[in-house]
Amino acid sequence: MASRLTPEREAELYTAVLELLREVGYDALTMDAVAARTRCSKATLYRQWGSKPHLVVMALRHDKPVKLAEIDTGSLRGDFDVMLQRTDDCRLEKDTALMRGLAHAVHNNPDLLRAMRELLVEPEMDSLDEVLQRAVRRGEIAADNPALKLLPHMLIGAFVARPLIEDQPVDAAFLSAYVNAVVLPSLGA
Amino acid sequence: MASRLTPEREAELYTAVLELLREVGYDALTMDAVAARTRCSKATLYRQWGSKPHLVVMALRHDKPVKLAEIDTGSLRGDFDVMLQRTDDCRLEKDTALMRGLAHAVHNNPDLLRAMRELLVEPEMDSLDEVLQRAVRRGEIAADNPALKLLPHMLIGAFVARPLIEDQPVDAAFLSAYVNAVVLPSLGA
Repeated sequence: MASRLTPEREAELYTAVLELLREVGYDALTMDAVAARTRCSKATLYRQWGSKPHLVVMALRHDKPVKLAEIDTGSLRGDFDVMLQRTDDCRLEKDTALMRGLAHAVHNNPDLLRAMRELLVEPEMDSLDEVLQRAVRRGEIAADNPALKLLPHMLIGAFVARPLIEDQPVDAAFLSAYVNAVVLPSLGA
Repeated sequence: MASRLTPEREAELYTAVLELLREVGYDALTMDAVAARTRCSKATLYRQWGSKPHLVVMALRHDKPVKLAEIDTGSLRGDFDVMLQRTDDCRLEKDTALMRGLAHAVHNNPDLLRAMRELLVEPEMDSLDEVLQRAVRRGEIAADNPALKLLPHMLIGAFVARPLIEDQPVDAAFLSAYVNAVVLPSLGA
């Protein structure tokens, strides 16, 4: 059995995959192109990641700057503040461009959609849910508040609507205003 | 100067444009294809609508079942209830499919984006804003509530996130739950 890649080599590969993704888009990103760019054999790529959708989604997941699960300040407002502090505007703009490029691919590639759900969306949702459940245990949010299940919808709305409606990029100042005006009031917090 | 088309003929043309849009998508929809399908001359199409983006957006606008501006029940909750009653699930599903197909085209066609903003998004936002301003005048919402400017973001989030996160179509029952759990509480209504 071949040994696994080192974490450094893995990080290098993920960076190359995201570069390619921004340059050529999902459809034109082939395992051959990744192999050539990273001087890694296709056999290794398939052994380590199994498929192109899985590799792409793991690269996206690796690149995420904010690990929600680590945030636990003792109050819901404090947890949101830390999430926002760790998010810088330049990254938000790059991520939005990446996501927009993937949105189309996702609808034409059920494997990519499944991998994104399992590896990116669901862990993120679980971490957000953990933040909310701690707030419920502290008595900040009522356990039966129906908005608890709708936080992802509210946040996705902020990301999608800001460029579409206002022709403005999503930045930390806007997200902070949105959390205070929409998210916290609907949670009753 | 040539006479304008009758409203019936205009409606027929819009229906044909939306059919083509669902069948082939925005990029493959040409003025030639519209002319052939509707047995209308290209000269007439250009005289009446000026350009493909304008024609497509006017067809989308004509097809909208709910005219927000006409709704005035005397309470914000009542206005939302009427909006939801006039929206049926089958239409929502068809509209979501159409919008998904257009989302990609919009990002590659600045003319389409501009036409959608001017002819579809802004009038809709103005009508929603009128509903909210009446609620402010009745004293249901504080005039300085920051969520007043964020209603489009909340609603777009509901439409985008429901299929993405929950793998479920947007239906009237979900929208009603979302309005009650997110929209009305954040507006303080």
